[in-house]
Amino acid sequence: MKELALIEQIRRSFAASRSKAVALGIGDDCAILRPPAGSEVLVTTDFTLEGKHFRRDLHPPESVGHRCLARGLSDLAAMGATPMAAFLSLALPASPLADPKSRTWITRFFKGLRALADQHHITLAGGDTAESPSDAILADIVLLGAAPIGRSLRRSGAKPGDALYVTGSLGGAAAELSSLFTLNTFPAKISKTVNHPQTFPQPRIAIGQALLRRKLATACIDISDGLSTDLAHLCRASNVAAELEQSAIPLHPLTRKLAPDAALNLALHGGEDYELLFSAPTSTRIPHQLAGIPITRIGQFTRKQAKRPLMTLLGLEGTRATLEPHGWEHFSLS
Amino acid sequence: MKELALIEQIRRSFAASRSKAVALGIGDDCAILRPPAGSEVLVTTDFTLEGKHFRRDLHPPESVGHRCLARGLSDLAAMGATPMAAFLSLALPASPLADPKSRTWITRFFKGLRALADQHHITLAGGDTAESPSDAILADIVLLGAAPIGRSLRRSGAKPGDALYVTGSLGGAAAELSSLFTLNTFPAKISKTVNHPQTFPQPRIAIGQALLRRKLATACIDISDGLSTDLAHLCRASNVAAELEQSAIPLHPLTRKLAPDAALNLALHGGEDYELLFSAPTSTRIPHQLAGIPITRIGQFTRKQAKRPLMTLLGLEGTRATLEPHGWEHFSLS
Repeated sequence: MKELALIEQIRRSFAASRSKAVALGIGDDCAILRPPAGSEVLVTTDFTLEGKHFRRDLHPPESVGHRCLARGLSDLAAMGATPMAAFLSLALPASPLADPKSRTWITRFFKGLRALADQHHITLAGGDTAESPSDAILADIVLLGAAPIGRSLRRSGAKPGDALYVTGSLGGAAAELSSLFTLNTFPAKISKTVNHPQTFPQPRIAIGQALLRRKLATACIDISDGLSTDLAHLCRASNVAAELEQSAIPLHPLTRKLAPDAALNLALHGGEDYELLFSAPTSTRIPHQLAGIPITRIGQFTRKQAKRPLMTLLGLEGTRATLEPHGWEHFSLS
Repeated sequence: MKELALIEQIRRSFAASRSKAVALGIGDDCAILRPPAGSEVLVTTDFTLEGKHFRRDLHPPESVGHRCLARGLSDLAAMGATPMAAFLSLALPASPLADPKSRTWITRFFKGLRALADQHHITLAGGDTAESPSDAILADIVLLGAAPIGRSLRRSGAKPGDALYVTGSLGGAAAELSSLFTLNTFPAKISKTVNHPQTFPQPRIAIGQALLRRKLATACIDISDGLSTDLAHLCRASNVAAELEQSAIPLHPLTRKLAPDAALNLALHGGEDYELLFSAPTSTRIPHQLAGIPITRIGQFTRKQAKRPLMTLLGLEGTRATLEPHGWEHFSLS
């Protein structure tokens, strides 16, 4: 139980870094948040389970802590929300963690989580801890954010004729994961996080906020399950079809050493890129960059028609191919 | 993966039973809640892990679903909050659930959860699902509630001289658990839930709301870890000491078949009773009942003094004994 006491200690250390919206953090029956007046409250929860979402032998602990929080932050980004607070439920196995090496793991996990939390001015306002019933580390993160009432960016607002945009570049997370599997180890020294889209993804909070504030987007979703799968979600929620221009898709530098087909495949279906996909009328002037990140127009929405594909890929030679969602089949409800 | 699809189906069925505060439920990147104007938002998260919090061979699935939600509702009750929505992260083992018996388990789990959710007019507004990395079923529930700004009942408001009250009766949950272990099975037919304080605890939402609305309590906590442990939490948060009158402690009917010492032991340290413990000035008239549940004065708060015990038990013969917290050592942060 010493490890749980250690967690308590680390998590209580978060109490010092209070978010503005947190009126009462760790230590009572509930945490108390006070969203700005005129706000609606955004909520998202995401599991991070060892063996399913990460491997302890492959992912550095800082990466596990970072990704835990990044998943939830990316969901807030997709709605244009301002993060208020995070809640972490963490279960650790009893036996394998009862040694100094494991205490180091926990400390490094929280270091990774905290670095990203500080970057976004949020704190851990609560959560739960328990002993894991197996050897697997289990985490569930909850993120709460705020947005002006009625202004949150939903998946359902895209209209036929709207253009389709994506932030940053795609396929990097899958390319990094694939090289991790090949190397079967993580580089001892982490250089810039931009080179680690899988292990240290950067949620696009500032871009989501800009899209909301400047009323640029009609619909938005984050690309956590892969472009093809998340675009299908957006199409279904908005009741529209989409055409994707292959030549326009921005490929992550890490995919450049791959054959063109393989690179395209990762960009379309790889998942975990945590970029934003959004729609806007062609009459809306979309900047080439938002918050320092390139914005690329990669297609357009069309009217949904019976017997016509939901998604079409316009190839380099003017070909048209049906695009099927082949990303991560993820049964999340949020 | 069929089981996950089944969960999706069941959880989507919750979409029909919208809570008033839920502007957008399952199906986008985040859920959207709109608390009443002038509210603060209360948040609590609780793990329910197989082998740690329940046994699949002992607890009926309805009980597991019910208790999952009851844990969070009880935390909201302790703050006097009005529940707004629940979020459930649920991981199921792949192999053991790939049979009709297991599909029945899931259906019955959600039946239990839903019955309690309906009773409190809330719905599942989101969550996450995953495959469990082991054979254990893993759940994490998040509850959001609302209370008028600055009015939430905290643990920290008790003053020396305040009287100490408890709702309902104590020791029932531990007594039922002990008889479950002895019988090693659950009775096929569940009679009234009042007889099942462990398997179907009733969170005291209406009482918490009445305490807040009528400004009756100066501090409040729920008794999830046992009277001795939760009273110690309250004393420490309020910086006061407490005297507990043994003769006044209301014992649950299920403890009556036990020896008096054993019954007292369960009432003091048993845990999981989910009653409320609160403080009020002696000048405040506390009703004998709230929401149909008896309210009992069981002691008083005194000034905390160095070298004096934090908690004292006043015995039947006028004895004074130091009361140590011997309840559930629970490392929850909320």
